[in-house]
Amino acid sequence: MASTELTFADRAAHRAWLASQAALPRGFRTGCARFDFVPAEVAKPAKMTVTLIALERPTPDFAAMFTRNAFPGAPILVGRRRLEAAALGAVVVNNKISNVCAPGGVEASEALCAETGRLLGIGADAVLPSSTGVIGWKLPVAQMLGQLPAAVAALQGASVLPAAEGICTTDLYPKVRRAELPAAGGTASIVGIAKGAGMIEPNLATMLVYILTDAAVPRAELRAALAEAVDASFNRMSIDSDTSTSDTVALLASGAAGAVDRAAFRAALARVCADLTEDVVRNGEGVHHVMRVRVRGAPDLRTAVAVGKSVANSPLFQCAVAGNDPNVGRLVCAIGKWAGANGLALDPARVRLAVGGTEVFAGGAFRLDEGKERALIAHFKAAELYASVPPADGLTFRPPVSWPPHERAVQLDLDLGAGGAEAAVLGADRTHEYISENADYRS
Amino acid sequence: MASTELTFADRAAHRAWLASQAALPRGFRTGCARFDFVPAEVAKPAKMTVTLIALERPTPDFAAMFTRNAFPGAPILVGRRRLEAAALGAVVVNNKISNVCAPGGVEASEALCAETGRLLGIGADAVLPSSTGVIGWKLPVAQMLGQLPAAVAALQGASVLPAAEGICTTDLYPKVRRAELPAAGGTASIVGIAKGAGMIEPNLATMLVYILTDAAVPRAELRAALAEAVDASFNRMSIDSDTSTSDTVALLASGAAGAVDRAAFRAALARVCADLTEDVVRNGEGVHHVMRVRVRGAPDLRTAVAVGKSVANSPLFQCAVAGNDPNVGRLVCAIGKWAGANGLALDPARVRLAVGGTEVFAGGAFRLDEGKERALIAHFKAAELYASVPPADGLTFRPPVSWPPHERAVQLDLDLGAGGAEAAVLGADRTHEYISENADYRS
Repeated sequence: MASTELTFADRAAHRAWLASQAALPRGFRTGCARFDFVPAEVAKPAKMTVTLIALERPTPDFAAMFTRNAFPGAPILVGRRRLEAAALGAVVVNNKISNVCAPGGVEASEALCAETGRLLGIGADAVLPSSTGVIGWKLPVAQMLGQLPAAVAALQGASVLPAAEGICTTDLYPKVRRAELPAAGGTASIVGIAKGAGMIEPNLATMLVYILTDAAVPRAELRAALAEAVDASFNRMSIDSDTSTSDTVALLASGAAGAVDRAAFRAALARVCADLTEDVVRNGEGVHHVMRVRVRGAPDLRTAVAVGKSVANSPLFQCAVAGNDPNVGRLVCAIGKWAGANGLALDPARVRLAVGGTEVFAGGAFRLDEGKERALIAHFKAAELYASVPPADGLTFRPPVSWPPHERAVQLDLDLGAGGAEAAVLGADRTHEYISENADYRS
Repeated sequence: MASTELTFADRAAHRAWLASQAALPRGFRTGCARFDFVPAEVAKPAKMTVTLIALERPTPDFAAMFTRNAFPGAPILVGRRRLEAAALGAVVVNNKISNVCAPGGVEASEALCAETGRLLGIGADAVLPSSTGVIGWKLPVAQMLGQLPAAVAALQGASVLPAAEGICTTDLYPKVRRAELPAAGGTASIVGIAKGAGMIEPNLATMLVYILTDAAVPRAELRAALAEAVDASFNRMSIDSDTSTSDTVALLASGAAGAVDRAAFRAALARVCADLTEDVVRNGEGVHHVMRVRVRGAPDLRTAVAVGKSVANSPLFQCAVAGNDPNVGRLVCAIGKWAGANGLALDPARVRLAVGGTEVFAGGAFRLDEGKERALIAHFKAAELYASVPPADGLTFRPPVSWPPHERAVQLDLDLGAGGAEAAVLGADRTHEYISENADYRS
């Protein structure tokens, strides 16, 4: 869960806080170029941003994890090869089109890497490509190549915020998180940015996340630390159970701040990943409520995570949360469907369920009354980010806020009474705004 | 898939067709009683219907299958014991409260069986109980017992339609399907009714389904035939991936029409189950489009069904279908997330995908252009049951029809190129009406 419990009165307050987090670690620069284009498949004007993240000097110390979806995008295929490269000097990212299963996709990604490398004076294999957006469409490669010089010209070393905005698609706001720790050369920082919003149930990697640090950490340790942090953060959330074809998390260490304590680095990295996970869920498409599902008493970690996700992904429970309706019967439905389908023998008499700290199930039966009903409704309402606003056209719901008002969550505590493993999973409700966003995403 | 391709101009036409299907097989009577009550947990008036299905003589030839959810309702626990009973003479069903994990739930179900049996002159263990509705609340047992004489007084042997209506909850309309086949004593019929609408992804059984036949079929054969029919029908659909705690399908044979051919009976039973499955999906909560996902080229049947369900349950693809937006990239996302998470090695170059007969993916890449885009949109629109109507309060969407206008579906053909197994799965889109229905289901 987030290392902080922030509240924001308005968009300006949120922007000010983002700016306070956004100082780039030493050794990094970022730049963007935004332009209009027309996709080849649907003759309808669109906008794209190309974002560059560049190191002053290519570094051998980098790590990256990618989606396990069986139809990985072309940038994922190229990115997996980059893991073997001697050093990485830049990342080139575009939004709007994800370059997944598009004809000539790998060639398109490699062409972008080659031109980025040429402009920066490094090899194509020192450039990691990323794309996010519509699946199946072709990148407008010629136009993108033409925009790269503008992105290079925009490179600056002060703030990661332009890059955090450049990679967004349906995100309501950019996501930036930082941690600092002592280093041989003073203070080192770890700064992460994320693109999220939809098609989010990462499986061993996640959406687009870039984490930059000036700590000096060797490649092997960097990769181990990233795997550990990702498994405990991004891999334990779901907005809509749809594992993206483009999930990528990359961690680049410039080394400019010098060596750091290994345990302190792992802890700081874990915190940045957990904070970004919280941000991605809170800004999930149409999210009114974040849910934090804490599962205890599971026979093993895998089961704890799976039961938590079964609750987080239950359409019926998601809708109940959206309506501030504490229909807790749907909790046992969601736990029981996973247990039943996966052969987990649960003894209802040993299961205990609490919502917002209020016990609702024990000894094999629900324990409900009007007082608890009121307490549960109050808990749901306190965790609500916003209520739906009737749409102007009667049909198309849009979120009325473009910042996160607070970091509260619906707290679900599930004790399965079947072992000693535990895990927390983050999820979200299901709302009219999600439907409106996704019933016509490409328009 | 449905054995028919019906269209209905309005509710009256649909009602007339239902009536034409509803003649009860010989040896059965049904009756209902409807009344007002106030749940103990939330002091808000509600309505309940108690429905009886009674045999003229208890029969040893019956079959029943129940949910595999790990938190089965009290009627499921009682029903499993009934499978060992010498004979079954009646089913007592209530809607509104499902009697799942409620204190004293089993005792409540047994009390209803005992009183039903007493009124009908049969033993309590010859009565199968069923309940559907809110999970966790207690049945108003005293009031229900007081209503049973009225339900018995209402018993009639002409039509199953009152019972088909009595078991509904959020269903827009009752569901009745029939098949006829030659029998020793003339013609035998198989008539099935179903309650569906939400919490629907049956796992080895389904929502509430009662199938009545006057064919004489021995218990063992009846149970084998039911298992086979259920596996190929109800177990291959999903409305919202939430496997209910109350799923029950029961098949009762009065024998009044005499012996039948075994293969003919299995075929007729399979047809009734397939038709009811189609009905349940088409009347799923908020459904605008039914999707029929046909998976071929799978390594085994389990994989074919699982991949089909991954597509049917993808929130993003569901929303795209709702919006008549042929965002076919989400198809590969949904296939690929299952394959990636379950270790199925897919070769994208061997995968072929078609939508409404239009090829969209082959040779490892999408094949899209503006002509195909138009064809896909036309196919989606032709399969649409209704479009959303702006709600009066700006927020609460209600379906504008209470009958199924047609039986068309969005046709998805997925050839995985990875084996010889195939299966068809039925699913539905995700709409504002589903959110409105379930954000405040209990109110």
